[in-house]
Amino acid sequence: MAEKYQIFQEKIIKELDCLDFFSEPKKLYEPISYILSIGGKRLRPVLLLLGCDMFSGDIEEAISPAIGVEVFHNFTLLHDDVMDKASIRRNRATVHTKWDINTAILSGDAMAIKAYEFVSDCQEKYIKKVLKVFNKFALQVCEGQQFDMDFEQKFKVSIEEYINMIRLKTASLIAGGLKIGAIIANAPDDDCEYLYNFGLNIGLAFQLQDDYLDVYGDVDVFGKQIGGDILSNKKTFLLTSALENENNSDYNSLVDWINAEDFIPEEKIKMVTQIYNNQNIKELTKNKMDNYLEKALSELAKVNLPDENKSELVQIAKKLINRIS
Amino acid sequence: MAEKYQIFQEKIIKELDCLDFFSEPKKLYEPISYILSIGGKRLRPVLLLLGCDMFSGDIEEAISPAIGVEVFHNFTLLHDDVMDKASIRRNRATVHTKWDINTAILSGDAMAIKAYEFVSDCQEKYIKKVLKVFNKFALQVCEGQQFDMDFEQKFKVSIEEYINMIRLKTASLIAGGLKIGAIIANAPDDDCEYLYNFGLNIGLAFQLQDDYLDVYGDVDVFGKQIGGDILSNKKTFLLTSALENENNSDYNSLVDWINAEDFIPEEKIKMVTQIYNNQNIKELTKNKMDNYLEKALSELAKVNLPDENKSELVQIAKKLINRIS
Repeated sequence: MAEKYQIFQEKIIKELDCLDFFSEPKKLYEPISYILSIGGKRLRPVLLLLGCDMFSGDIEEAISPAIGVEVFHNFTLLHDDVMDKASIRRNRATVHTKWDINTAILSGDAMAIKAYEFVSDCQEKYIKKVLKVFNKFALQVCEGQQFDMDFEQKFKVSIEEYINMIRLKTASLIAGGLKIGAIIANAPDDDCEYLYNFGLNIGLAFQLQDDYLDVYGDVDVFGKQIGGDILSNKKTFLLTSALENENNSDYNSLVDWINAEDFIPEEKIKMVTQIYNNQNIKELTKNKMDNYLEKALSELAKVNLPDENKSELVQIAKKLINRIS
Repeated sequence: MAEKYQIFQEKIIKELDCLDFFSEPKKLYEPISYILSIGGKRLRPVLLLLGCDMFSGDIEEAISPAIGVEVFHNFTLLHDDVMDKASIRRNRATVHTKWDINTAILSGDAMAIKAYEFVSDCQEKYIKKVLKVFNKFALQVCEGQQFDMDFEQKFKVSIEEYINMIRLKTASLIAGGLKIGAIIANAPDDDCEYLYNFGLNIGLAFQLQDDYLDVYGDVDVFGKQIGGDILSNKKTFLLTSALENENNSDYNSLVDWINAEDFIPEEKIKMVTQIYNNQNIKELTKNKMDNYLEKALSELAKVNLPDENKSELVQIAKKLINRIS
């Protein structure tokens, strides 16, 4: 990663370490410290700082809103894990597994409030704009999660519906975070919008890559088991694309695998991957990712700043979307 | 109720009726419309408007924050009902009963965000102050709910712990709402603080009255079955007070009723009420309520305004705490 990325990442990690969640009642605050300590790349707050730095804004002013975005992101993970009945996140027990569902609900609620506290800790002249962006993506993340759950009850989801869901659930927060950084740097409105669109397209590419890596990733690089989405029939870009055309020769076979109740996991992964290969889903996904990356870079190019101010984000975008094994 | 109270209540009801939650995904937004339509007295937003009106503030400017406070209150009810496994609220099915737990979690999250959207819709010069008050009580409501749940696992809770819990869970929101109204009317800081303290004490009295009415209320006036708290061993002010002194003659008998697993409901209610009567818990609770009401009125008296500006709140406070059958 680029140098600034690392510096900002270390800054965010240090800030998160210093947060004091040791108040009473313990059962409310301990899970917040716990989930924030589990880690992750801290991509969203770092992008927010980069969005601010790009317009020569004061990073120190952007730290608190950046922490707010990270706390909000972790709040959504906490509640999503309850809804998805996920017992493990990043090799650690999820909050509702380590404690219980009520704790996960209530500590999550407290995190959402803390997120607002952090994000509104900025200059008064920016606060309305910042909150407008924050409220928008916060609600969109909820909408995306609801669509994602709705999709579980549907056999077929169109590619358009799928892209809309990940735009809401994943991309909007990344885009909104970048935009908040730009707002705090007092960037012009149209530049804020270009940066937002850059983030939206990076976010879409990023989620497609996640779908891709579940099938075509290197387990050592990806960090989780290959084929999990295939086994759970998760409606990813790959499955959605493969089911798009009912006339293709593998359609019935794919439907059989989706409906199969008794199977050897390795065999299902192998056979579904084979169908994806036959249908050129691998190339289709890579092309779609590349398109989003190109679109992101073209939006970034519109920002009215010298190229050198944008080089960090260009590098990061390319690096993020090339973590393919 | 006083005339202004009714006018403001109608205003709030009308505003809530006009809210548009018909967006997609339906499963996210329908439960929000549903819980907001169930009704209630709209006490909190009306008090906020009265807090504003008292300082000759513009009510129209306070409407949106008032709606924010009501939406937040209903969000906490929605999640509390999940945590408390309550299937009925105001004679209607709770959201997790009508839909499911995931819907209740996610729609609640969306409501919390909408609450922030409404509450921050005020003049830029007030927004930092308003959000500070809002964030404070929002977190306190979570803390209070956690203490309340913690108490379920404890046999004994001190009166002090109990009062602290209801201060956080119930009183802080009422107090904070009033203060936000005053802030929007550009009231002086010390007056905002007196009004906050008025609200805190009214809130405490209000909750004690709720505890009282469960035992000594008239079912037709109270609107719910008498004795529910006794049957569920809920740690109310009455039970907490009755358990305070281990040397009283009824202590062992009360403990037996709490631990009893096989009993006739009517008999438990009758016998525990008898113990309360023996121990003068009825008078103790009424006195405590009266003390909080007096304290509230003395805080209101400190506000640097003519008496006529305070008369509405004085009337409402007295009326609220005298709804005893």
